Amino acid sequence: MLHLRLAWALAVLAAAPVVAFGAETRPNFIVIYADDLGYGDLGCYGHPMIRTPHLDRMAAEGMRFTQFYSAAEVCTPSRAALLTGRYPIRNGMCHSQFRVLRNNAAGGLPREEITLAELLKQRGYATGMVGKWHLGHLPEHLPPHHGFDDYFGMPYSNDMLPAPDAPKGREKFFAENPAYWRTPLIRGTNVIEAQPDQRFLTRRYTEEAVRFIRTHKNGPFFLYFAHTFPHVPLFASADFRGKSPAGFYGDVIEELDWSVGRVLDTVRAQGLAERTLVLFSSDNGPWLIFNHHGGSAGPLREGKGSTWEGGMRVPGIFWWPGRIPAGVVQREVAATLDVLPTFAKLAGAPLPTVTLDGVDISPLLFNTGRGERDAFFYYRGDVLFAARMGEWKAHFITRSGYGPDQPETHDPPLLFHLGEDLGERFNRAAEHPEVLERIARAVQRHRDTLEPVRSQLVETVATP
Amino acid sequence: MLHLRLAWALAVLAAAPVVAFGAETRPNFIVIYADDLGYGDLGCYGHPMIRTPHLDRMAAEGMRFTQFYSAAEVCTPSRAALLTGRYPIRNGMCHSQFRVLRNNAAGGLPREEITLAELLKQRGYATGMVGKWHLGHLPEHLPPHHGFDDYFGMPYSNDMLPAPDAPKGREKFFAENPAYWRTPLIRGTNVIEAQPDQRFLTRRYTEEAVRFIRTHKNGPFFLYFAHTFPHVPLFASADFRGKSPAGFYGDVIEELDWSVGRVLDTVRAQGLAERTLVLFSSDNGPWLIFNHHGGSAGPLREGKGSTWEGGMRVPGIFWWPGRIPAGVVQREVAATLDVLPTFAKLAGAPLPTVTLDGVDISPLLFNTGRGERDAFFYYRGDVLFAARMGEWKAHFITRSGYGPDQPETHDPPLLFHLGEDLGERFNRAAEHPEVLERIARAVQRHRDTLEPVRSQLVETVATP
Repeated sequence: MLHLRLAWALAVLAAAPVVAFGAETRPNFIVIYADDLGYGDLGCYGHPMIRTPHLDRMAAEGMRFTQFYSAAEVCTPSRAALLTGRYPIRNGMCHSQFRVLRNNAAGGLPREEITLAELLKQRGYATGMVGKWHLGHLPEHLPPHHGFDDYFGMPYSNDMLPAPDAPKGREKFFAENPAYWRTPLIRGTNVIEAQPDQRFLTRRYTEEAVRFIRTHKNGPFFLYFAHTFPHVPLFASADFRGKSPAGFYGDVIEELDWSVGRVLDTVRAQGLAERTLVLFSSDNGPWLIFNHHGGSAGPLREGKGSTWEGGMRVPGIFWWPGRIPAGVVQREVAATLDVLPTFAKLAGAPLPTVTLDGVDISPLLFNTGRGERDAFFYYRGDVLFAARMGEWKAHFITRSGYGPDQPETHDPPLLFHLGEDLGERFNRAAEHPEVLERIARAVQRHRDTLEPVRSQLVETVATP
Repeated sequence: MLHLRLAWALAVLAAAPVVAFGAETRPNFIVIYADDLGYGDLGCYGHPMIRTPHLDRMAAEGMRFTQFYSAAEVCTPSRAALLTGRYPIRNGMCHSQFRVLRNNAAGGLPREEITLAELLKQRGYATGMVGKWHLGHLPEHLPPHHGFDDYFGMPYSNDMLPAPDAPKGREKFFAENPAYWRTPLIRGTNVIEAQPDQRFLTRRYTEEAVRFIRTHKNGPFFLYFAHTFPHVPLFASADFRGKSPAGFYGDVIEELDWSVGRVLDTVRAQGLAERTLVLFSSDNGPWLIFNHHGGSAGPLREGKGSTWEGGMRVPGIFWWPGRIPAGVVQREVAATLDVLPTFAKLAGAPLPTVTLDGVDISPLLFNTGRGERDAFFYYRGDVLFAARMGEWKAHFITRSGYGPDQPETHDPPLLFHLGEDLGERFNRAAEHPEVLERIARAVQRHRDTLEPVRSQLVETVATP
């Protein structure tokens, strides 16, 4: 499919001049993406104990979504969707058994997928990525091959390569010993540290992000800043360790909040606030099986790995002073799938000529209209578990995120009204067969657009 | 014990002049108390769908507590504690089987208890109550006999006297038919309507509260405004019914929020904002067994009727422009027990000479110091189920609020760290025997202050 990719690039060059004439109209974009941070983990989303003054301020100056979704329940597919605007079922970036790319995976995001970075690069953006990638760790899969000029970060999760002398079971996760973990640090496509001390990761990522913003202050730029935390094992720097009333997990979130403050302060200090759109979100819900080292989905059911709301509904805060109205709580449904089409629209970039699952949400962001989203689909791996239309959500299959239970198929599906029943407790299927029919038709329309594709998560190479 | 009461009143008269010389230093007080509203039911506490702009503004202009407790898990004892500053175990206003005063109860708040209204009346306050009382419905138990100059409201819960032709089971709760319910409306000590239309209750209560404030604008005044809702059966006026994205329950909360806005607007319009302290809270957690007609405890476990956090931790918002700093999230522990000693302090009223369980929290409110609270005790009826010190909570007995399960006794107790583990999921008792010992000593000190007392909830009269 490389010819398709080339054809798209040529079409872009023909359609849109790389440098706009007159005043710069292309805004800068920053996406800050946390790992396993739950819907309920921030002060502005109701956490009683974790202190997040910078994120609370970002919400007060911007728009806070209460029904914002990651397109997947775990890490790899979630990131693939964020960067492509497509459900991972379309490009093989999901698998029900493997769930995510392991550190011995041969696969990665297929080269013919058009990422948000490529799209913006074609429009003359400087593109940088800092943090966790997890879309293929072999050199040919790394961010520089997907549209990013710069890359500094970890190729996969911080728990994927324990040191040989680390304890075998779960205890190593709670030991707070950086010597137990060997996920490497990469710059460009080269490993620069085989065993970075994870206590300094958030700080180092942040310095790198700040440097990228300063370097490209003349813009336009796109920075994708994907934190390693609060994925377990938790680590925090000495300035934060032991400080939060919410314990170690709180320390880690409070350091992330500090990092967000540093990024926004840098944007302000460079005079870029009125031409920079910043999004804060998370890749999926909290990893509940890690006890007090896992977060909270707030009032939502279950967490990471599941298609209950707690697995996929995440914080979503958009900030752009002067353009996005301040202090708005946005209750319309939106998703990380919508980031690519929305940013493309704002940058004046043509959309890739593939099936997109995201929609342009700029009318929501600027309070000029309603959302265009008709339905949202909840996949667990490559299987459709649930679907929502309006406030109704139907579950065809349910299963806990990481529990020992087996999948349970529901016919008729379970039906919940998410407005009246946040916790998905009261099945209303018997009262509303017409809603189930409407959802079934939407699912069929969705399935009709799918084509068989090989999963990227299956093949392995020898571990490094 | 009437002589004790008289002795106290004389002591008060001797100690403090009823009218202060010079500038008025006695602030007005308003307590707005919702019924069965959960910790997670307001926008500013993280509800994704219910819109509460007036309460959110009240929090933004005031202080929002994240660890604020009702002193009981159900209605009657909760209200007794609010008005006396004492655990209900001290005055017989609780009972493990009956739980609350029924509409055929003979008992009520004992006459020798000193209420906040009596305390403030002695200091020259005009005292008014609007709304649900539930501390004894016989004339001799009503608010005018407990220090309130004026009373307009319902003597007990809005579901306690179904009409004879109402359906027998639970369906009447969901029928939205005002003709099914006969809880009367009282003015002073007289029933003025045998079957008020509950759709207009929130509005009528609010008009009454606004009138009281206007009438007593020269102050000082104390208004206790206890809403009937969101206790089931739910009702809302036509302006709100069918409007909330959160369904009927949302409609009801949004009308309460409107009511709060009306009260605060009235305070502002009368030029009283800088000398009026307003508290918004709830009597206990959400009544979860009423499905989508029950609220949400947010991230907390269980709801009304239980001693898990969701049963007793409630919203607590304090507002006093110019005195209470704006926009503060207060994470120290406080309780409705603290209202009486705190208001007494601010009004310059001497405390009653009885054992009080509340402490003066004005240092917290004015950000001048820490809380004085050493421990908090969680009673279910007249049995101590749990206790907390700092962030540690020990459960001696657990039981769901209204489920079919039997009480389960724990020896050693379950031990949870509420900072790290909001959902009370990870028992840490084995790691921290010293914490359990410290809590056991605090429980013993508490028990040493208790004296046997007859429950007021047992004896009945013929139903009216």
